[in-house]
Amino acid sequence: MPPVGAGLWRSLPAHQVYGANTNVGKTIVSTVLCNAIQNQRKKAAFLKPVSTGALDDADDRHLSRFGAGTLTKCLYQFDEPVSPHLAARQKMIPRDDDLLASIHQTLSDWARSDIDLALVETAGGVHSPGPNGNSQADLYRPLRLPIVLVADSRLGGISSSISAYESLVLRGYDIQSVLLFRDDYYQNHEYLADYFNKKSIPLVSLSAPPPRPPVENADTQARDEEAMSSYYRQVSAESDILRLLEELNTKNQKRITRLEEMADRAQDLIWYPFTQHQGMKPKDITVIDSAHDDYFQTFGSSQSKESSAELRPTFDGSASWWTQGLGHGNPDLALSAAYAAGRYGHVMFAGAVHEPALSLADRLLKTIGNPRFTKVFYTDNGSTGMEVAVKMGLRAACDRYGWDASQEQISILGLKGSYHGDTIGVMDCSEPSTFNQKVEWYRGRGHWFDFPLVKMVNGTWKVEVPAELKADLGSEDAEFESLGSVFDLEKRLGSEATQRYKTYIHRTIKDLVERHGMKFGALILEPVILGAGGMLFCDPLFQRCLTDVVRDHPELFSPNASSPKSAPSWSGLPVIFDEVFTGLYRLGRPSSASFLDVHPDIAVNAKLLTGGLIPLCTTVASQEIFDTFSSPEKSDALLHGHSYTAHAVGCTVAVDSLRTMDDMDKNGSWDGFKADWDSKSVTSTSGPSDVWSVWSQSLLQDLSRAETVESVFGIGTVLSISLRDAEGGGYTSTAAKGLQQKLAVGGDQFNVHSRVLGNVLYLMSSVTSKPESLKEMEKLLRSSLI
Amino acid sequence: MPPVGAGLWRSLPAHQVYGANTNVGKTIVSTVLCNAIQNQRKKAAFLKPVSTGALDDADDRHLSRFGAGTLTKCLYQFDEPVSPHLAARQKMIPRDDDLLASIHQTLSDWARSDIDLALVETAGGVHSPGPNGNSQADLYRPLRLPIVLVADSRLGGISSSISAYESLVLRGYDIQSVLLFRDDYYQNHEYLADYFNKKSIPLVSLSAPPPRPPVENADTQARDEEAMSSYYRQVSAESDILRLLEELNTKNQKRITRLEEMADRAQDLIWYPFTQHQGMKPKDITVIDSAHDDYFQTFGSSQSKESSAELRPTFDGSASWWTQGLGHGNPDLALSAAYAAGRYGHVMFAGAVHEPALSLADRLLKTIGNPRFTKVFYTDNGSTGMEVAVKMGLRAACDRYGWDASQEQISILGLKGSYHGDTIGVMDCSEPSTFNQKVEWYRGRGHWFDFPLVKMVNGTWKVEVPAELKADLGSEDAEFESLGSVFDLEKRLGSEATQRYKTYIHRTIKDLVERHGMKFGALILEPVILGAGGMLFCDPLFQRCLTDVVRDHPELFSPNASSPKSAPSWSGLPVIFDEVFTGLYRLGRPSSASFLDVHPDIAVNAKLLTGGLIPLCTTVASQEIFDTFSSPEKSDALLHGHSYTAHAVGCTVAVDSLRTMDDMDKNGSWDGFKADWDSKSVTSTSGPSDVWSVWSQSLLQDLSRAETVESVFGIGTVLSISLRDAEGGGYTSTAAKGLQQKLAVGGDQFNVHSRVLGNVLYLMSSVTSKPESLKEMEKLLRSSLI
Repeated sequence: MPPVGAGLWRSLPAHQVYGANTNVGKTIVSTVLCNAIQNQRKKAAFLKPVSTGALDDADDRHLSRFGAGTLTKCLYQFDEPVSPHLAARQKMIPRDDDLLASIHQTLSDWARSDIDLALVETAGGVHSPGPNGNSQADLYRPLRLPIVLVADSRLGGISSSISAYESLVLRGYDIQSVLLFRDDYYQNHEYLADYFNKKSIPLVSLSAPPPRPPVENADTQARDEEAMSSYYRQVSAESDILRLLEELNTKNQKRITRLEEMADRAQDLIWYPFTQHQGMKPKDITVIDSAHDDYFQTFGSSQSKESSAELRPTFDGSASWWTQGLGHGNPDLALSAAYAAGRYGHVMFAGAVHEPALSLADRLLKTIGNPRFTKVFYTDNGSTGMEVAVKMGLRAACDRYGWDASQEQISILGLKGSYHGDTIGVMDCSEPSTFNQKVEWYRGRGHWFDFPLVKMVNGTWKVEVPAELKADLGSEDAEFESLGSVFDLEKRLGSEATQRYKTYIHRTIKDLVERHGMKFGALILEPVILGAGGMLFCDPLFQRCLTDVVRDHPELFSPNASSPKSAPSWSGLPVIFDEVFTGLYRLGRPSSASFLDVHPDIAVNAKLLTGGLIPLCTTVASQEIFDTFSSPEKSDALLHGHSYTAHAVGCTVAVDSLRTMDDMDKNGSWDGFKADWDSKSVTSTSGPSDVWSVWSQSLLQDLSRAETVESVFGIGTVLSISLRDAEGGGYTSTAAKGLQQKLAVGGDQFNVHSRVLGNVLYLMSSVTSKPESLKEMEKLLRSSLI
Repeated sequence: MPPVGAGLWRSLPAHQVYGANTNVGKTIVSTVLCNAIQNQRKKAAFLKPVSTGALDDADDRHLSRFGAGTLTKCLYQFDEPVSPHLAARQKMIPRDDDLLASIHQTLSDWARSDIDLALVETAGGVHSPGPNGNSQADLYRPLRLPIVLVADSRLGGISSSISAYESLVLRGYDIQSVLLFRDDYYQNHEYLADYFNKKSIPLVSLSAPPPRPPVENADTQARDEEAMSSYYRQVSAESDILRLLEELNTKNQKRITRLEEMADRAQDLIWYPFTQHQGMKPKDITVIDSAHDDYFQTFGSSQSKESSAELRPTFDGSASWWTQGLGHGNPDLALSAAYAAGRYGHVMFAGAVHEPALSLADRLLKTIGNPRFTKVFYTDNGSTGMEVAVKMGLRAACDRYGWDASQEQISILGLKGSYHGDTIGVMDCSEPSTFNQKVEWYRGRGHWFDFPLVKMVNGTWKVEVPAELKADLGSEDAEFESLGSVFDLEKRLGSEATQRYKTYIHRTIKDLVERHGMKFGALILEPVILGAGGMLFCDPLFQRCLTDVVRDHPELFSPNASSPKSAPSWSGLPVIFDEVFTGLYRLGRPSSASFLDVHPDIAVNAKLLTGGLIPLCTTVASQEIFDTFSSPEKSDALLHGHSYTAHAVGCTVAVDSLRTMDDMDKNGSWDGFKADWDSKSVTSTSGPSDVWSVWSQSLLQDLSRAETVESVFGIGTVLSISLRDAEGGGYTSTAAKGLQQKLAVGGDQFNVHSRVLGNVLYLMSSVTSKPESLKEMEKLLRSSLI
């Protein structure tokens, strides 16, 4: 099923009516509102998606009878007077997606007609289960209709009303008004009016409806009907109700006006990250009204002219800068965040401990599974976490080799095209490039190797040696039967390529140290893929050889170096893995280090750490690295720490995210994807043995053969498409713009928001993306490129 | 009233019984549990803090009758069968604080006796108002007792049970079990068992109690009693109940065991920020179980031997590293965070906009009120925000003066003792010091002025000129009648001190540029107080003169400089204010720049921005600074941006926090404090005219006269106490340790967690701290120092 758009129509204020509990009078309130509209010679429409006897007494029929001409519709009717999830057992059950699509379709149809107000009534309370057993508050969330909440006027109703309200808020709903019956004994309406007034939500109290007749017969029924009619006539003319209807209408208009002006206002007020503002127009700014699962709900996006809807689902193709893991608007993570906020807020971390920080440290070390790691250091983002890693690595090297870094320059070893963040210290860890060339204090401090790339070209997996490296390496491009065989390091380590790689690396380092007098303090790698540098898929054998040479030849770096030490001691140089992008299941495995079968001494994780919700970063290190900072001097300590270090909200959400992803891994949630990738061809002895992607092998095959495509790869959740560029590619290339624009226009069902890095367009799913969503994306990619 | 400890006793599992709604059977469930305990020859106790007739039918009397010998107690009994907040109108109303204290006292007494299980029953539903009209879920939160939730077995009960659960979770409660009656028609217990099982919360369903007799008379009453007794006999023997009781007991033990091991585990796993681990012992680690308002709840803290309670309130004296503003565990901020998480999760910000980021930009600029500012750039913490500020400032200067920063060193001007964060780029903005001397890549790039300090010595406000500055400045210490008169810049700018300051500053810069060939790219100041450098209160006149000289004499910096430009153009150097610590009401004003009556060109805010909940930082800049980065080249853009830039959760919480603080400011929430400070003596013409503190003038007077005290100051929420140190003070001084230890032991009511910076001990409140809390703190300080 296609994703549904969130519900917003210019010509039709459409609301969902939720009840604080069952039997609070949702249908009566709806009938009052519809009467009031109809009495103004306007048109009301009432939609009951799912109706069961007991819960609401066939509400659409009640509306038909008393609604003064209101258009009514029920999508699914069950007669059994129980909760819909039980009633549905006896009937054909509509799928949740179908239900949402039907509601959206109905409202869109109404928006194109002359309807002035539409109400969509739920069944029971906010969390009463829908036909498939999911809470209605969750089930209807993709539509995110503005809400009319009918509060409970009975004893206990203050509590149930506020709780119902909170359940809606924590799912990102906007509650636009609260209605309830006046009860002069319990006076809930007074208490709740105060309560909601503080939240700027108008509350309207209504006279209670006439009591039901104690005995039902033709006579009492007639009198009951007359009493109800009279009630509706009277209440629907009350000024509070008329004012409320006006206000609901105004809010709908204001919301649209605000969405219309947001891009302009953003252009005025916001200084965007990584953005050249010159020439940027408001129309270039994506206005995101909300998000759910893999989709943004965007305003003013291209869509078919016939559609009356203002919002459109837009696939979050960059996984929101590679952060997204467990779906936007995930209610479990929202509740976890709220729990930590409610239990702690943020509490001081230096010299203190709280459960979330401790649990996360524990779980993270288990998830990563590197026996060297014993310590966890917290920061806020990948850049600061890498600053910490660099401070750790350099100190360890200087300490062992007796260097005084204030007197001499200590450099790092890395790969060309690496990127470790935007703070100046870690900018210095990358070679001069577009990213840093104009940063006044940038001073690249290192040597960066060229390296062979993994890519699929014309249907074949290749390891391609860049032209400038061919002579040095004495090596040519190689073809592989599968991506798995590229990662078959056990086999490849015995090959001639290994010798060539190692010889070249050894010679280069020796030359840098001996002839150029360079001193190196750390080896820094992004395992497997160099992300920001342009989605460069490095031959894992090369990264492995680089690590091996550094560790096997400590004598390269200092005459003081002793012979190679065995793990967990570091040897040669501290090895730092920047797994900010590649770690924690982004590439399908808990740690991307496992692809190289290397245990780094220091590693940094962020992005997916919180499942895609809030900033948090960890730098993990070996005991030996930690011990380097141990001394009687306070000034020898790692003097780093941000205000919100190990904030409880982030740690709690991260514990939940890791647990969820670890469980998915263990429970075979990705087996369907893995089957397509025939992981049996991989024979690595340690670590998980699978190399796979959520993107199908046949998609890669087909795209790689497209005329405009230079190469592609897919691994884990990442798909990378390198477009042919006469100019040679790079960060300033515009070759991928055309494809980006085609995807932005999208297909019938949704648009795609994607990011490009020069001539590379990449797409990234979350770890919970559904196969159907990805199938649709694949269809769209084929039609855009082939 | 003293703060209450959260409820945890080693010998007594104590639980609070909440109901998903009223009339769900809380008392019957409590009676079943008490019966089951009593039948095992153990002792149960039942506490009803507040009872009203209708809601629960005199529950303690029911327990007395059917509880098989359970000890029962009711603290407040109302007969009117309405919600307690209405019933209380007719009676003496207990204050919420008194109620909490009584509950804690009762449970502590029971813990010292032979009671094996205590239940504290609430009235109605989770949000039913307590006697003072506050929701019980909020009212009882400081105790944070583990919860037994009685779910609703009736129609609609799935929804009300889940919503009640969510309301409790978002206040940081731990729900340890759910009980409800079996109803084979609605089968809520089946649905809810699945639901809570996924959350690892055990659910036990019970047989429903016998129906109440339709007519009440002596005969039916006797039969009813017999039926109930028989019911309790039967149900309380059910294996599920016995297993549950065992589990509750085990959970209490496990929780204590976990708290006992946490410091050890932390010592094993955590690499702490700014901490020398050598010599650190687990006992040095504060174990924080939860937090509320100004207080942590700490485990194993010193307290009177007689107390049986395991947790103790501990004043968060560093405001959790200067972040805390609106109280720990603030339910409004928790709900805001949850709303944003539910509506968006995190959504991509480059090239996109969402309401929270836009609203925050808008509100922030209004709060700060600097007419130069037009653009907001988001990052995650003060350090990264300052990196951005430095990039902005240097680029603007290099651009105007035609410098090629890759070829020559561009430095900054600042003050000695400044600190701008832990990333290497902003470390370079501070002079060599303990903080950075061992960071391998640190290269201080700037000149840093000594400056006169503001302090109260022996009861008198002074501006003290450091010895090393006296000759250069030709100026002596000066005394002031009040802190307000120190800030009376309008008057002081006409004084001789101003001329001396300006002459000295001008001469120094001229010398640095002409004789030492230095080039400067920005002036960076922490207005008023240099925080991390040791709570150095700089003479505001000196900071003002520094800014004036830089802006009035652009020719100092480059021969290319034109004559002073008028605002909003920057002149001389871009002026950057680091208000990460001092901004947003920390010193009692929305912006600390107003104390200097200076409009900087760039400013950075963080810490209080989110009210003390989660990391977020803003760097705001003038249009002219922004325009410097505008060009047809992408590479000229400010290429900076973290993954979670402008994350929706942070922005939403920040909008709420700013609104709350702005409203408090407007509504005179701090008038009581201000009255003590006689703000009329200040006559600055622009900006708010008040200089005040939450710490009383008389406290400062008294402390400043204490023998061990060198000087003190108080401003806004900050109190700083400089202890005499024979060794001369500084970051590595231990002079303040003694006072810190005294405060840690605390008084009768609570401990104090504080941080020291060398010989300085500071204390910081939140902006919502209650006068009574601060009075208690003042009492403790007096008794510790005088």
